[in-house]
Amino acid sequence: MIDQLLQTPELARRINDLLTFYGMAHAYRSGLEPGPLPPELDDVLSELQPYDIALVLEALPEPSRLVLLYVLEPQAAAEALGYLEHDQQYRLLDHLPERTIRAIVAVMPSDALVDLLGAIHPNQAQEILKRVPLEDVAQVKELLSYPEHSAGGLMTFNYLSARTEWTAAQVIDHFRKVAQNVENVNYVYVVDKAGRLAGVVSLRDIILAAPGVKVAEIMYAKVISIHVDADQEEAARLLSQYDFSAIPVVNHNNQMVGIITVDDIIDVVEEEATEDIQLIGGTEPFDKPYMQAGIRELFGKRIGWLLVLFLAESLTGSIMRSYESVLSQMIALTFFIPLLIDTGGNSGSQASTLVIRAMALGEVTPKDYFTIIWREIRLGLLLGAVMGLVAYGRALFMGGSMSLGLTVAFTIIMVVVVSTTAGATLPMIGKRIGLDPAVFSAPLITTIADGVGLLIYFRMAQLIIGIGG
Amino acid sequence: MIDQLLQTPELARRINDLLTFYGMAHAYRSGLEPGPLPPELDDVLSELQPYDIALVLEALPEPSRLVLLYVLEPQAAAEALGYLEHDQQYRLLDHLPERTIRAIVAVMPSDALVDLLGAIHPNQAQEILKRVPLEDVAQVKELLSYPEHSAGGLMTFNYLSARTEWTAAQVIDHFRKVAQNVENVNYVYVVDKAGRLAGVVSLRDIILAAPGVKVAEIMYAKVISIHVDADQEEAARLLSQYDFSAIPVVNHNNQMVGIITVDDIIDVVEEEATEDIQLIGGTEPFDKPYMQAGIRELFGKRIGWLLVLFLAESLTGSIMRSYESVLSQMIALTFFIPLLIDTGGNSGSQASTLVIRAMALGEVTPKDYFTIIWREIRLGLLLGAVMGLVAYGRALFMGGSMSLGLTVAFTIIMVVVVSTTAGATLPMIGKRIGLDPAVFSAPLITTIADGVGLLIYFRMAQLIIGIGG
Repeated sequence: MIDQLLQTPELARRINDLLTFYGMAHAYRSGLEPGPLPPELDDVLSELQPYDIALVLEALPEPSRLVLLYVLEPQAAAEALGYLEHDQQYRLLDHLPERTIRAIVAVMPSDALVDLLGAIHPNQAQEILKRVPLEDVAQVKELLSYPEHSAGGLMTFNYLSARTEWTAAQVIDHFRKVAQNVENVNYVYVVDKAGRLAGVVSLRDIILAAPGVKVAEIMYAKVISIHVDADQEEAARLLSQYDFSAIPVVNHNNQMVGIITVDDIIDVVEEEATEDIQLIGGTEPFDKPYMQAGIRELFGKRIGWLLVLFLAESLTGSIMRSYESVLSQMIALTFFIPLLIDTGGNSGSQASTLVIRAMALGEVTPKDYFTIIWREIRLGLLLGAVMGLVAYGRALFMGGSMSLGLTVAFTIIMVVVVSTTAGATLPMIGKRIGLDPAVFSAPLITTIADGVGLLIYFRMAQLIIGIGG
Repeated sequence: MIDQLLQTPELARRINDLLTFYGMAHAYRSGLEPGPLPPELDDVLSELQPYDIALVLEALPEPSRLVLLYVLEPQAAAEALGYLEHDQQYRLLDHLPERTIRAIVAVMPSDALVDLLGAIHPNQAQEILKRVPLEDVAQVKELLSYPEHSAGGLMTFNYLSARTEWTAAQVIDHFRKVAQNVENVNYVYVVDKAGRLAGVVSLRDIILAAPGVKVAEIMYAKVISIHVDADQEEAARLLSQYDFSAIPVVNHNNQMVGIITVDDIIDVVEEEATEDIQLIGGTEPFDKPYMQAGIRELFGKRIGWLLVLFLAESLTGSIMRSYESVLSQMIALTFFIPLLIDTGGNSGSQASTLVIRAMALGEVTPKDYFTIIWREIRLGLLLGAVMGLVAYGRALFMGGSMSLGLTVAFTIIMVVVVSTTAGATLPMIGKRIGLDPAVFSAPLITTIADGVGLLIYFRMAQLIIGIGG
């Protein structure tokens, strides 16, 4: 039920009351073992999902947060922590008793732990790393070595694997032993003696199989996998294309090193879309929720592009000054300038956002480039023709001469064609030279359209109206 | 391996050759049973994922597509078909022999079948519906009755359920019977005698439990579920917040009616982001890949907003004409018009895209509205101050007077504040009155900023420079 989300404050109050009533805060402060929870408290806590516990943690006063983490099962505490901001996670962990920290860190999913370590100060990460169980340290350090936005940075070690020679019954026995540490139970990954990925079989097929059947006989040998260095967008594309709930990650020897689960992919898909939308809106991407970014941070992310665009746009001032005599001979020309440059900007913005999004979704491959440009040229002509006609009407309606109307109309047609073509072409060139296509988005295209539009406009005025200058 | 994606044409050629070599096309045309496949062909086909088969289908010549669907296992054929465009799915199905159509339709996942029926012509849908097994028709018709973008329109019937009084062993027995028809094996949903959702238990816990344990004892009773009429965005938010791989869907009696799986949610997340990006770019949303939309369709989706914005922007012409005498007294004023209105547009575009995205991600609730407006007013002042200073410098550098510089600078400050405030406020008002916030995006904000900006500019010129008019 969704209602419970709305009830977080009451829930937090109730849990806070229970913690106080049963002397948990006292136990926490005096360093006593929490021991078995009073049934009333246990009933409330055991029915909460980790995400709900995270909401409760945020709603509790700071000291009670620590008490709650202290009394929770380490598994529940670890999973709930994973939903909080990284600095918040660290602050809470850092204040807990040594024993509790160790218990929580030991059961944190490896991807969540690595995300935390990568996001906090190296000294703080060092402190946490000291509490990681010795047998896991090497793996965690390996995960830390992968770039944040690579498949390696996204993967977790908590998967289910089996050896080719095992039987279905052996796999189920093995599963019973490790099940608590597995993030995805849909697939069993099959590896050979050297740890190379040899196949995949669904847990469903293992359960359905006769107990004595060898894994090698029922597995898919042609596994879709992703290289540990691949970009996270590649992982997102594979998972969403194949509708898998997890994908295995391999190194250059085809040895299996982890899995990426679909719940992390949703975050990637949302993150990538957010980044593109921020760029399309002319803001440098930032990876915090808007409400959590400070004024100073937002200022920093926004002023840069505003200045760049301002400087580029300054060119329009120079263009206009060089046509000062044309303007002064016919002030009415200026009436149409905002209209002209905005129509150019709008049509360029349509083309660039459509192409940027199609590229982000992997719908466009380099061999489509010329098709796209040719489409946008034709669209520019069609859209420009309609807009030019309307603009001609508007110019006459404002009492302009027919030659002014023609000047405005032809300029619009040309500006729209230039804008749609540039809007489609620049993101593709950007990708070609290794930039994020979303950089070439509406604001930049608009600026280019403005300069080009004014040049066309004044030339047209000289040509059609016959103004010298 | 990703390589195989690149090898689709060769793979398709090889499969085509094998189909011909083994006389499958002949068998298909003469209406013979395909019978057991020759091992060579079976080896190739059995290792392909449904998505790969879909790619092969697209790469094959039309007649061979039908032959391939004819010889495939119905399950594989049905899943592969699900990846094709709906009209393509229908065309292929429609050409297959009656027996093959029935076999494929019988095993299609209910959500894929319903998507297909909803997307094609009602008469065609009627034709397909005739081939749905009698016992499923009522369910499929029920699914068809839900709006496409609701939880009901997204759900599938293929889930695993158990009764509260069953034991773990009974659940596993049941699972063995129905496993082939289940889309998600992570969760077993527990219902009472009236079909009301009573709890959820992971298949993992069922396997780990002692065989005689009652489901009711190990289930979570507080299930997160979604109402069948809820919007698909709500489903996406719940699944991505809780990191579940599926979520149960209930009706108003809390009776379980289906599940939504996470792979469908990725599509929803991408679709919603695409729609927002299209609106932000000033295009009416369309639900086809860009490359598959025709010129006529793209024209239709783009011309509407261009015209609306053109008409709104026409106001700037009237504003300028009413200040004609001001302009003619100081032509240099016009040099800064593109710069002014673009800076307003850019800063408004930043604010509106950030707020639109934050709203789409559910980061913003109505109680944040005033905080956001207050933030954007302060940001507008900060950004405006910096831009104003730069603009002042630029005006002097272009040989303008100090009073012209001040006019430009103060106008920029005010335009930026108006733009960031309007950019943040309008999407929130839009939501309030039931519109998609993304409608109030960059192009519209820019247009508003232009009109307001010009009014401020001319007033300022009269005030600071002292031009009458």
